[in-house]
Amino acid sequence: MRYRLILEYDGGPFVGWQRQAEGASVQASLEMAIEKLSGERVTVTGAGRTDAGVHALGQVAHFDLVKAFEGGKVRDALNHYLRPDPVTVVDADVVGEDFHARFSAKARHYLFRILNRRSPPALDAGRVWHISPKLDAEAMDAAAQFLVGQHDFTTFRAAECQAQSPVKTLDRLTVSRCADEIHIEASARSFLHHQIRSFAGTLKLVGEGKWQPRDVKTALDARDRSACGPVSPSDGLYLVKVDY
Amino acid sequence: MRYRLILEYDGGPFVGWQRQAEGASVQASLEMAIEKLSGERVTVTGAGRTDAGVHALGQVAHFDLVKAFEGGKVRDALNHYLRPDPVTVVDADVVGEDFHARFSAKARHYLFRILNRRSPPALDAGRVWHISPKLDAEAMDAAAQFLVGQHDFTTFRAAECQAQSPVKTLDRLTVSRCADEIHIEASARSFLHHQIRSFAGTLKLVGEGKWQPRDVKTALDARDRSACGPVSPSDGLYLVKVDY
Repeated sequence: MRYRLILEYDGGPFVGWQRQAEGASVQASLEMAIEKLSGERVTVTGAGRTDAGVHALGQVAHFDLVKAFEGGKVRDALNHYLRPDPVTVVDADVVGEDFHARFSAKARHYLFRILNRRSPPALDAGRVWHISPKLDAEAMDAAAQFLVGQHDFTTFRAAECQAQSPVKTLDRLTVSRCADEIHIEASARSFLHHQIRSFAGTLKLVGEGKWQPRDVKTALDARDRSACGPVSPSDGLYLVKVDY
Repeated sequence: MRYRLILEYDGGPFVGWQRQAEGASVQASLEMAIEKLSGERVTVTGAGRTDAGVHALGQVAHFDLVKAFEGGKVRDALNHYLRPDPVTVVDADVVGEDFHARFSAKARHYLFRILNRRSPPALDAGRVWHISPKLDAEAMDAAAQFLVGQHDFTTFRAAECQAQSPVKTLDRLTVSRCADEIHIEASARSFLHHQIRSFAGTLKLVGEGKWQPRDVKTALDARDRSACGPVSPSDGLYLVKVDY
């Protein structure tokens, strides 16, 4: 039986989604909880391999078990065994064998939160990127529009990115102000490694007035990693939703 | 010189606003930071003496210093010295000697967040009261209206409350659903000890259908602490704003 999970997690204490030689990963936490429920050792596949510190509101994952469980039972049992790790199964369902959390995904939606005020965050420490100087969200949004569409995103791709091609289609990239926060929303079928954090770091330069919006197009056209702004921290990044 | 602070804090690691014999308090954190800035030992007075675990988005406090500092300097220096405590000075100003954070307050606004879904919180652990069974927010709101106005709130007052009278005027108490959260918003000039948590615990009984809305009026009229529902945890409670 194949099971699909909708997951929420605080990326702070994890080395990321993916199991690593050292450190706690979301994947390993889930696999441990699944083994406690079923006695079976499985590999969990996630829609997005979020980095260390990246949060999820709607990560999607799948795994296979020989045993048959009802979805609600899987959700409640995993939530029990996941304690006290900050990972929660919001929903669990039995799905067809053709469902693949990673390869069946049609769109991934991310949110990047910037706290744009003088004072550091108290309640949202580790959940936002804190930037003191007032950012020009309209200029950032104008710059973002140069990135939308199909492009060679070599400039915005980490050196260790494993994707076969740097060409991706970015469906949406918007920047808007909500009180003292700036929200960057990004949607695409798939992203390159560090692509959104590279966007955020580059758009910050525009928000500060150090770059003009059009400089982002120049950076994109350069297809050169060194043309990218400094990659942002992971704190403010959330995998919000995956469409199938 | 008298200084006014607007404060945000995560109540989780604190024994509450007020300095206690044991444990970290928001007040003591602030007084320590003020001493590092000024070399002066002061007492900080807060608008609301929030309990252990209660958060603040807009607590207001005042203190006096012999030395004169510019407001922005006070804000930035205190934020520097407050690290790594989860308290942040959102704003600091020089005010007149007649300003008193506690006694000049005309209204205090609180928010109580309930996460009302099957799965426990991951990102909001410690920030919401998690209740699994679906609550009827409309019934809770109808019940809340019996509490608005001037009443003897003995039923909703902790035994250790130090207020001279149990008679208070509740200006507003609303219950509304926002996706999988229930928000209780309460406004009054002042509140009794544990009053909002007593409201939340009692309104939960209505939300679950164990009480009818009118049973809340019966409990209020009883003027008897034992008529109150079980007091809620402090996790979901936020001091949002204080009016002067």
